[in-house]
Amino acid sequence: MKLEFKTQIRVRYVDVDQSGFVYNGNYATYYEVGRSEALRQMGHTYKEMEDQGIVMPLLNQYSRFHRPAYYDDLLTVVTYIPELPKAKIRFEYKIFNEKGILLNEGYNELVFLNKATGKPQRAPQWFVKLLENHVLA
Amino acid sequence: MKLEFKTQIRVRYVDVDQSGFVYNGNYATYYEVGRSEALRQMGHTYKEMEDQGIVMPLLNQYSRFHRPAYYDDLLTVVTYIPELPKAKIRFEYKIFNEKGILLNEGYNELVFLNKATGKPQRAPQWFVKLLENHVLA
Amino acid sequence: MKLEFKTQIRVRYVDVDQSGFVYNGNYATYYEVGRSEALRQMGHTYKEMEDQGIVMPLLNQYSRFHRPAYYDDLLTVVTYIPELPKAKIRFEYKIFNEKGILLNEGYNELVFLNKATGKPQRAPQWFVKLLENHVLA
Amino acid sequence: MKLEFKTQIRVRYVDVDQSGFVYNGNYATYYEVGRSEALRQMGHTYKEMEDQGIVMPLLNQYSRFHRPAYYDDLLTVVTYIPELPKAKIRFEYKIFNEKGILLNEGYNELVFLNKATGKPQRAPQWFVKLLENHVLA
Repeated sequence: MKLEFKTQIRVRYVDVDQSGFVYNGNYATYYEVGRSEALRQMGHTYKEMEDQGIVMPLLNQYSRFHRPAYYDDLLTVVTYIPELPKAKIRFEYKIFNEKGILLNEGYNELVFLNKATGKPQRAPQWFVKLLENHVLA
Repeated sequence: MKLEFKTQIRVRYVDVDQSGFVYNGNYATYYEVGRSEALRQMGHTYKEMEDQGIVMPLLNQYSRFHRPAYYDDLLTVVTYIPELPKAKIRFEYKIFNEKGILLNEGYNELVFLNKATGKPQRAPQWFVKLLENHVLA
Repeated sequence: MKLEFKTQIRVRYVDVDQSGFVYNGNYATYYEVGRSEALRQMGHTYKEMEDQGIVMPLLNQYSRFHRPAYYDDLLTVVTYIPELPKAKIRFEYKIFNEKGILLNEGYNELVFLNKATGKPQRAPQWFVKLLENHVLA
Repeated sequence: MKLEFKTQIRVRYVDVDQSGFVYNGNYATYYEVGRSEALRQMGHTYKEMEDQGIVMPLLNQYSRFHRPAYYDDLLTVVTYIPELPKAKIRFEYKIFNEKGILLNEGYNELVFLNKATGKPQRAPQWFVKLLENHVLA
């Protein structure tokens, strides 16, 4: 399996530092938008996850910067879910500019945390089912 | 009365946009640091305020940009409290660079919001007392 | 005259602070997106402005916070240009949530700065013409 | 060799998202402050590097999140330079809270880019010498 989702982000003025390149920390935000829009494309939202008392903090994150992104670039964020989540979920990302040039790729792993108890838990069943359905689709 | 507090902020790379100037939205953060350090200099923290169930959202904010701030500038944020708070509190700010040149000035007003009820309330008594004591000192 | 432009912004997780509300400094970015998309809707970009050697730093900015914005809200930013620019240009903003409730309003004034000389200049002729054409349209 | 530098960062309100934890993308900024203060502790600044026409974009970045950081935490960022730079330089980071608990660790690699030509170059001689002197000291 490898679920794949696409979304677009316009680079904002605030995102670019004085080198003229998008500041590296903003890729974390682009990944966040990728994840968030992936869920929305499956008919759900990360907001619902939190409404059910689950937060999803990061375990780790890796980013490889191939080429700079510039102000006003229209980026395409491709978000992959390479396997069904158990205690944690892995996301992979590729970011392209309008010419289709790969600018950045990365991955991160997130855990499912019960907000009330502060304890890790397994991925909620509805969420695993949702992913399974999209694999079959 | 006019309570006055000073704190320093080193401009980070992330703060500067491709014009080479500090991005305007970051002054909101510099004001936040000014407020937060003002409380700390009076022996308290904004964290304590929130631990007591009070959040302080902004009502309004004004900023006047005289001169740009640059990467690695060591800024001095002067934070003023011009009067004792009732339902709201007013802060005023002046930001100077190392040469003592005024770069930015502004103000904002914040309310005291009971986090549990979501309703505005008066400034907590301990906080008003704290300010009174510093006026007299 | 009063030129009016609309654009939408999805509130990101990074935009919201621990009070659960969009952090006040992010409205500066929402205004930036409003301005930038206003230009794009007239067939130009702020990037072109900079490519012609003009940067547009802020003179001032005012913001009034009526209601909080929340994570995942789909905001509508309405950007107004109330008069033709000369040495400076004024933008006004209103930000609504999906229910049409006014969350925030503000304005700012920007100058036209020759990047090479660092000196202020008048609004470029093509830009004034562009606005005039849109007033008549 | 392993050069080691320490600096402190107070977590700002803007840094924390609605989970109550520091937003993951801000660690990129904490690393930036770590690098920047490392240079300052050796008597130089990254600003000088750029004044000499060299920018240092990232090749990659890895971060591992052990424990959350909270609003108003006073973090200690320990920055390591594990070897002398040639075409690229590697930094490693550990971030601790006031209780000495390790919250985050990571690394990144940066290249030296000639700003005028846009081409990579070797680390400037003065910079390599500077590091050598600090290894011996």
